[in-house]
Amino acid sequence: METNTAPKTSLTLLGLGGMGAALARAWLGAGHPLTVWNRTARRTAPLAAEGATVAGTAAEAVAANSLVVTCLLDDASVREALDDADLTGRDLVNLTTSTPGQARALAQWTRERGGRFLDGGIMAIPPMIGVPDSGGYVFYSGSRSFFDDHQRTLAVPAGTRFVGSDVGFAALHDVALLSAMSGMSSGVAHAFALIHREEIAPKDFAPLLVDWLTAMAALVPLTAAQLESGDYTVGADSNLAMLVAGNATLLRTAEEQGVSAELMTPYMDLMARRLADGHGDESDTGVIDLLVR
Amino acid sequence: METNTAPKTSLTLLGLGGMGAALARAWLGAGHPLTVWNRTARRTAPLAAEGATVAGTAAEAVAANSLVVTCLLDDASVREALDDADLTGRDLVNLTTSTPGQARALAQWTRERGGRFLDGGIMAIPPMIGVPDSGGYVFYSGSRSFFDDHQRTLAVPAGTRFVGSDVGFAALHDVALLSAMSGMSSGVAHAFALIHREEIAPKDFAPLLVDWLTAMAALVPLTAAQLESGDYTVGADSNLAMLVAGNATLLRTAEEQGVSAELMTPYMDLMARRLADGHGDESDTGVIDLLVR
Ligand SMILES: NC(=O)c1ccc[n+]([C@@H]2O[C@H](COP(=O)([O-])OP(=O)(O)OC[C@H]3O[C@@H](n4cnc5c(N)ncnc54)[C@H](OP(=O)(O)O)[C@@H]3O)[C@@H](O)[C@H]2O)c1
Ligand SMILES: NC(=O)c1ccc[n+]([C@@H]2O[C@H](COP(=O)([O-])OP(=O)(O)OC[C@H]3O[C@@H](n4cnc5c(N)ncnc54)[C@H](OP(=O)(O)O)[C@@H]3O)[C@@H](O)[C@H]2O)c1
Repeated sequence: METNTAPKTSLTLLGLGGMGAALARAWLGAGHPLTVWNRTARRTAPLAAEGATVAGTAAEAVAANSLVVTCLLDDASVREALDDADLTGRDLVNLTTSTPGQARALAQWTRERGGRFLDGGIMAIPPMIGVPDSGGYVFYSGSRSFFDDHQRTLAVPAGTRFVGSDVGFAALHDVALLSAMSGMSSGVAHAFALIHREEIAPKDFAPLLVDWLTAMAALVPLTAAQLESGDYTVGADSNLAMLVAGNATLLRTAEEQGVSAELMTPYMDLMARRLADGHGDESDTGVIDLLVR
Repeated sequence: METNTAPKTSLTLLGLGGMGAALARAWLGAGHPLTVWNRTARRTAPLAAEGATVAGTAAEAVAANSLVVTCLLDDASVREALDDADLTGRDLVNLTTSTPGQARALAQWTRERGGRFLDGGIMAIPPMIGVPDSGGYVFYSGSRSFFDDHQRTLAVPAGTRFVGSDVGFAALHDVALLSAMSGMSSGVAHAFALIHREEIAPKDFAPLLVDWLTAMAALVPLTAAQLESGDYTVGADSNLAMLVAGNATLLRTAEEQGVSAELMTPYMDLMARRLADGHGDESDTGVIDLLVR
């Protein structure tokens, strides 16, 4: 049986932004020897005080450990940081939000330089990192054996979900969930704008939003079932004709409240197109078909 | 103490669409004598079989009971249905989705015709109606004494939340939550479109969406706190500069997957505007300020 005194894998982390710093603290807190690097040196001091070894360059940081994690702004910043690093024999885990294509290309590039590659997509915000049962986790995809080799270390900051050997799949799952969140955020922004000039305190309104969005999010599996059956009328408790009439009410309310409807109209326009195509007895699931080229 | 044999208030319901039929069944099931009317007569037969009295015209239905509930398509359909009804001494509860302005105007119109008016906004889908603890409920606003007089009857199909004496407030709360849901639905549609041609089954992906949206919805109170303080940097664990870089990744992923980004771009454009205005260290809360005219 493992004991608390089992030796902890040492690793390198490139990037100490909001997310990188949270990851660093989780590994340090769990007793993993950690070497860090950040483009702007001022961000390293607090981590050094907490026990991290600070490398002067990314190449030095990569040389320090065989397990190397990147959490940088975007794909371009990863390429830039790793440009002159020697990846021979390195196990590179990229936790930078990327496109599936970028992940596949970075995997190829790493292999060509003698390293192994695993892609990850973080589904958490920094305060969830290192907090058991926070609900946060990380998607991983690529080599299953690479993942298995490091799963215990990777599980320190957040839960792990391996989603396939196609190295682009972690990014695809990540971006799909981020896109859904972006839509939700746009709706929340519009909702707060609608009440802004009324005697409704945002802090009183927020719990209503939380409860409602939670209840409606729970219905997403009905959409999935419709997509799998191809029949968008099954369980269409809210029919498209009624929803489109409701959209007119939503738009008019925005006008009454002095709020721009620019975040609402694109989805409404697609619903109206589906209705015009004769799908008034379906739910709004058919909008998905209109998005796919 | 009340017993199950206490006499139940008789009432009239105009509208037997998906929502109206669910309301009718809840009242009938709880033993309330119910008179119903629907523009298209064929929808009344199943309810008649379950014990409802069917009126031939809306005016007759209104004459049958002093408590009258409307659940029709939109404000225009309510006006049309009630056009030749005598509202003298009637207590009219409008559960049709309306704008705050429409609710205020309908209240005035009802008063002028000798009736009392209460507005309601249903936060539920039909399968939640009449189901205790379904999470569904109805916002009410207007006369508090009207609400108190009928609260017990109104609570039969779903929980009640009285949100103020301004009769437009139920509609405003309703439309604000519906708008937030519409944004979430647009994000979910984009997410399903992104995975459509991959070997990811919608039914396997749906629970990931549910959990993620639920976790992120729980953060809405942080946005409310920022709005109340006016400082959008407090607790900005995801800074706007990073989010805008992430948006480029989201757009590029849509392109790679052959998905139109039309549901994503309006929110991204506003985030980019806030960033250009020098708010890169804030969260995305500032987008709300850009929506308000
Ligand atoms: N924060 C979140 O809520 C969250 C959630 C999930 C995933 N993520 C992902 O995690 C990654 C990091 O996010 P974050 O919140 O830590 O962002 P952040 O606070 O803005 O930090 C960005 C990091 O990237 C570095 N960087 C930027 N451009 C660079 C370049 N050209 N070369 C080298 N380093 C560069 C920055 O270095 P400097 O200090 O020198 O600028 C900094 O370390 C992103 O891919 C993000 O999408 C974040
Ligand atoms: N379903 C939901 O998920 C849901 C959730 C919350 C709130 N709501 C609200 O509840 C209301 C009803 O929705 P629903 O789902 O029952 O819609 P629905 O199934 O489409 O039914 C619409 C109802 O309105 C009637 N109607 C339409 N135009 C009319 C007119 N000009 N005069 C008289 N009656 C007219 C229809 O009569 P015919 O049968 O003759 O067409 C039918 O009874 C809407 O305001 C909706 O926004 C619905």
